[in-house]
Amino acid sequence: MSFNIPKTSKKRIVIVGGGFGGLQLANKLKKSDYQVVLVDKNNYHQFLPLIYQVASGGMEPSSIAFPFRNVYKNRKKSFFFRLAKARAVVPELDVLQTSIGKIEYDYLIFAAGTVSNFFGNKNIEEVAMPMKNISEAMGLRNALLGNFERAITCATEEEKKELLNVVIVGGGATGIEIAGALSEMKRYVIPKDYPEIKPDDLKIYLVEAADRLLQGMTPKSSEDSAKSLEEMGVKVILGKKVADYNNRNVVFENGEVIPTRTLIWTSGVTAVRIGNMNPSVIGRGGRIVVDEFNRVEGYDNIFAIGDQCLQTTDPAFPNGHPQLAQVAIQQGTLLAANFNRMQSGQTLKPFRYNDLGSMATIGRNRAVVDLPKLHFKGWFAWAMWLFVHLRSILGVRNKLFVLLNWIWNYITYDYTMRLIVYARKAKEVKEREEREAQTHLGEDILKNSHELQN
Amino acid sequence: MSFNIPKTSKKRIVIVGGGFGGLQLANKLKKSDYQVVLVDKNNYHQFLPLIYQVASGGMEPSSIAFPFRNVYKNRKKSFFFRLAKARAVVPELDVLQTSIGKIEYDYLIFAAGTVSNFFGNKNIEEVAMPMKNISEAMGLRNALLGNFERAITCATEEEKKELLNVVIVGGGATGIEIAGALSEMKRYVIPKDYPEIKPDDLKIYLVEAADRLLQGMTPKSSEDSAKSLEEMGVKVILGKKVADYNNRNVVFENGEVIPTRTLIWTSGVTAVRIGNMNPSVIGRGGRIVVDEFNRVEGYDNIFAIGDQCLQTTDPAFPNGHPQLAQVAIQQGTLLAANFNRMQSGQTLKPFRYNDLGSMATIGRNRAVVDLPKLHFKGWFAWAMWLFVHLRSILGVRNKLFVLLNWIWNYITYDYTMRLIVYARKAKEVKEREEREAQTHLGEDILKNSHELQN
Repeated sequence: MSFNIPKTSKKRIVIVGGGFGGLQLANKLKKSDYQVVLVDKNNYHQFLPLIYQVASGGMEPSSIAFPFRNVYKNRKKSFFFRLAKARAVVPELDVLQTSIGKIEYDYLIFAAGTVSNFFGNKNIEEVAMPMKNISEAMGLRNALLGNFERAITCATEEEKKELLNVVIVGGGATGIEIAGALSEMKRYVIPKDYPEIKPDDLKIYLVEAADRLLQGMTPKSSEDSAKSLEEMGVKVILGKKVADYNNRNVVFENGEVIPTRTLIWTSGVTAVRIGNMNPSVIGRGGRIVVDEFNRVEGYDNIFAIGDQCLQTTDPAFPNGHPQLAQVAIQQGTLLAANFNRMQSGQTLKPFRYNDLGSMATIGRNRAVVDLPKLHFKGWFAWAMWLFVHLRSILGVRNKLFVLLNWIWNYITYDYTMRLIVYARKAKEVKEREEREAQTHLGEDILKNSHELQN
Repeated sequence: MSFNIPKTSKKRIVIVGGGFGGLQLANKLKKSDYQVVLVDKNNYHQFLPLIYQVASGGMEPSSIAFPFRNVYKNRKKSFFFRLAKARAVVPELDVLQTSIGKIEYDYLIFAAGTVSNFFGNKNIEEVAMPMKNISEAMGLRNALLGNFERAITCATEEEKKELLNVVIVGGGATGIEIAGALSEMKRYVIPKDYPEIKPDDLKIYLVEAADRLLQGMTPKSSEDSAKSLEEMGVKVILGKKVADYNNRNVVFENGEVIPTRTLIWTSGVTAVRIGNMNPSVIGRGGRIVVDEFNRVEGYDNIFAIGDQCLQTTDPAFPNGHPQLAQVAIQQGTLLAANFNRMQSGQTLKPFRYNDLGSMATIGRNRAVVDLPKLHFKGWFAWAMWLFVHLRSILGVRNKLFVLLNWIWNYITYDYTMRLIVYARKAKEVKEREEREAQTHLGEDILKNSHELQN
């Protein structure tokens, strides 16, 4: 028995990570004859496309999160959720080592996504605020609001400048979305709520190392979004690379600096690392190299999907797929179907990504949409963005509350959730975190199966 | 200039604490000819009567919190908010020392309420989870949900028992409300979401040292609420005092123990202490003794209202008023009126508490209400509780979202906000907290005005 999960005649599929890919896979296995175990370090699925709205105080965390146990409450016998971090895999024993102990699998699927990549710069890593999860988005919101408060009472003009300069590094969708949201906060919220701050003193910089924003989209979208952001008062800096952070300054490669205490990092990602994997299967960006069926090379019963994997077998994407929710969802769907095929002895189908288009929102009535043969922007693009995202959010309650929030914010020009609040950490929780940290077994430590911990 | 607040011809009233009393006072001074400065350690007002719903996952923090800057957005010239902790007062200079520097006042009002009182027991203080603010309620929710997850995978029966026993100390309104909410979670949520936990293994104990619950209410209400809770599966323990916590056991005075890792503390409170106050004005429960106009004895221009003060001049309450929102609100109202009287040279009115009754909710369709001449319970009492509380919540948005949440939870029998999430603390925030902690000047340190910090 692993983790008190009953051993039955059903084959056990262990999924690491309940993001778009892992969740889709688990959903599509609903009627299958497998036992499904989902392992995630959070007890909820996060709808990351709206995370910037949590960071800017326009949305509650619970509106874009859905507890896994709630998703699967009607699948008591075939579905198990375990709150744990995956540490390492022991393929010769078919065992996954996690922060709370080991778990046996018949099939193991990695769908753990990516973490922020600071390209080895410790100074940046220490101060940068990423937006990869709800916890970080809440932390960013708290820090931003705290800086506004502090800017009013601080002693020097220099400090005030540092507190009111916001530098966003990374011109992808998340970067432009948070830049847009902050510029709306500057325009609509600051004058009302912070009469002691001159709105123009709040300066928002969006920095992208490449020569255009939204590199995954069409040049037209890049151009439109940069133009919109500039109109909204965001300083868009293209073709400059952030090299360091020190003395409360963002330092560019060419030596230029921007003083700031708010460095928002949406720049690079690297795939989540799993201990004890054969280094030969780790490709570009730390991604796990898989074949056309998302099977990890050299392993029979280990798969990887979504951002964490690199699949170069799709003729249209010889360098691998972009790291997008759509890819993960489609891979999850196909892998579930292939598992069902496996059981009935059918041949498996290879993965082909069907690009449905992509979109990014910039602000009120402003968005850009690239469909396979069509680019458009403006109010209709914005409405489409809202509709597509609302539709994708899990659960009726969340859909309802997100919609109401949007309507409220749209009418009132207000982001109402401007609380600076940290949950108090109970002693029991701190102790458990320490205990679980001690069970960490990275690939450096785990030499053989004798070292497995219970 | 203090904190960049302009010095005008208007007299400045500094209010410490934006709870029910402080907020009411600030509101009622809206049309006055005073400059109002509100100092609070949070940037939002908390509606504490619903805090148990945040702790049990039925309500979002933002639904019961209202940012002060939002409350006062239309009073830019006469109202100032400062995010800071009050440390000490220097009456001879009319200066308040805070965590972010000093602030001058013409009138100073303490409305900072109370903090939890652990009666000097360090073991209890270390592990107990109070419910005095949103941060603690979020922490309690995270800890409870984490314990449920852990109970499923823990190694021993003993550990499981500790994880699933919940001991609530304090049989006041907060204690019975959280007990009721947890018993509903046990009944409606656990069977659906945690099929691996036997609902009966989750044991909820409500401990009260006195011989009845709800001592501030009628004996009939005490009896009804105890009966309701027992019916709902809560073990109500009366007349036993918790003496200690060790080895993961709550220890009673008579030596009995209950093993638990979840000790919820709603038992005692003590008034917030302000450094450098004359010890002679500190009365029972750390409360600041005030005269019939809420003026602190021996100080001309310092006042205290709400839970933080002790007023024995009201003929109907010779031992002081109960520490209730209603008292604070009425004192805030009167003090504002008295400030206006002061300016027009009228004589001040003494405070008389008008007891409108009290109520507590226990669960679905269950509540107790004591009106001055009437006690009732059941569905109507519950509906009245909902109505009164909804009416008291600040802001149209919050009213709307609270109502929708209640309707949703009532229909679905579900508490949907079951996320275990902590906001990530940015380095800038950690550093600021450390800096501000260093400016702490308690009454032991502050000997004279030379030690004042800027």
